[in-house]
Amino acid sequence: VAIQEGCAPMRFTSETASDGVCERLFVLDGITGVLWQPAGATGTRPLVLLGHGGGGGHARPLAGWARRLTACGFAVAAIDMPGCGGRTRSEADERALADLHKRIAAGGEQVLPLIARSNAELANRVVPEWRAVLDALNEFAGGPIGYWGVSLGSTIGIPLVAAEPRITAAVLGIASGENLMEPAAKITVPVQFLLQWDDEHVPRDSGLALFDAFASREKTLHANPGRHAEIPAFELDSSERFFARHLSPAASSTT
Amino acid sequence: VAIQEGCAPMRFTSETASDGVCERLFVLDGITGVLWQPAGATGTRPLVLLGHGGGGGHARPLAGWARRLTACGFAVAAIDMPGCGGRTRSEADERALADLHKRIAAGGEQVLPLIARSNAELANRVVPEWRAVLDALNEFAGGPIGYWGVSLGSTIGIPLVAAEPRITAAVLGIASGENLMEPAAKITVPVQFLLQWDDEHVPRDSGLALFDAFASREKTLHANPGRHAEIPAFELDSSERFFARHLSPAASSTT
Repeated sequence: VAIQEGCAPMRFTSETASDGVCERLFVLDGITGVLWQPAGATGTRPLVLLGHGGGGGHARPLAGWARRLTACGFAVAAIDMPGCGGRTRSEADERALADLHKRIAAGGEQVLPLIARSNAELANRVVPEWRAVLDALNEFAGGPIGYWGVSLGSTIGIPLVAAEPRITAAVLGIASGENLMEPAAKITVPVQFLLQWDDEHVPRDSGLALFDAFASREKTLHANPGRHAEIPAFELDSSERFFARHLSPAASSTT
Repeated sequence: VAIQEGCAPMRFTSETASDGVCERLFVLDGITGVLWQPAGATGTRPLVLLGHGGGGGHARPLAGWARRLTACGFAVAAIDMPGCGGRTRSEADERALADLHKRIAAGGEQVLPLIARSNAELANRVVPEWRAVLDALNEFAGGPIGYWGVSLGSTIGIPLVAAEPRITAAVLGIASGENLMEPAAKITVPVQFLLQWDDEHVPRDSGLALFDAFASREKTLHANPGRHAEIPAFELDSSERFFARHLSPAASSTT
């Protein structure tokens, strides 16, 4: 299957269906990703974009979470960041990464600003990629669009949600950084923001400051004890209901 | 109907049923309150205690919220604080209240500590009242017990949950105060803690410090923009699901 949207064709490279979910791998202009849909889905439906975390994360391990969201009637999509999953790292990327590791190992510089700058450069590349994927995926969903991504998924997601008016609700968090304050202040759509109270990477005050920065009239901070990667499972239930409330109002009855 | 539990008989003074909910007013040793149950309910069921807010609040206006909780299969109970709703104020209470207002009006003293001391005295009286009511209500529920109360409902509720091992899950918040730090540090049951980001009565940092103080392994802070009384409606949905998860595990499936 190949569809033509703008100048780049999206190609589906595999399609499997199991347990009521159709999973399709795609490539668009070198960007690899996955689209999950309820099997046999027709008509328009909300689309939830999932941003994966850092540290070797990529799109496919999000399958479990994506499948739960399809059970709410959503289409779900994720892409690999450059150098992750199905995407080979360019020589320039390899050099930049080696340089970053060298500077961190050498000491004498603050690590967080170094990482923040590297992440900001990554966001500059990935935000347009996500928007191109969104153009191409539109015909598979056609309904309201949400974004879910924490940690690196928010480093990318906050600039993406700020830039992309088609995204009307977002779950973000487990992230901070000066470079995120300005895009956060441009976001006005409903936000659910996760914070790990004992995060070893995100200073608590900077996480609270980032929550404070969102311009959204509706925003809720969910803070839980534990370290960076210890988000409690019940927060996924909560994300699910947040998207049900904002992306499919008819399904948001809670009694 | 009169039942005998310990030394004080609980008397039901009225009973009405509508929309599938049976509402009964009761008096126990001068304490007035309301019990809501699904109409025709038999067998054991979880019980949620509701603590009303200050400023003239009392038990009966909680009926809308209580009825929603009965739809989850819970019994729900609320009592009037001394001097509120069905309870007349004693001369000593009148004097103490007039004295408090006079000292606040006179200035020269910090208002928050004055109110905190008054609330601490109130909690000393009301915690034993709640426990007596709980003894008497046990036969109408018999399942796990939760507590929900914000603002004054937490000023009372935090010492209550700390003292009462039968309460196994609590929604608290929109409150702070030095006197609450010690009981909070004794609480180990799951807590959902509400905070209003722009609360004109509860300084943000003191609300965050109180959340930090709970000893519970599972505790979640839900912070929302807005003033003291502007808790968003979706937080009631969230409280409902929190109780479903902790008080009736079989009903907590979310798909």
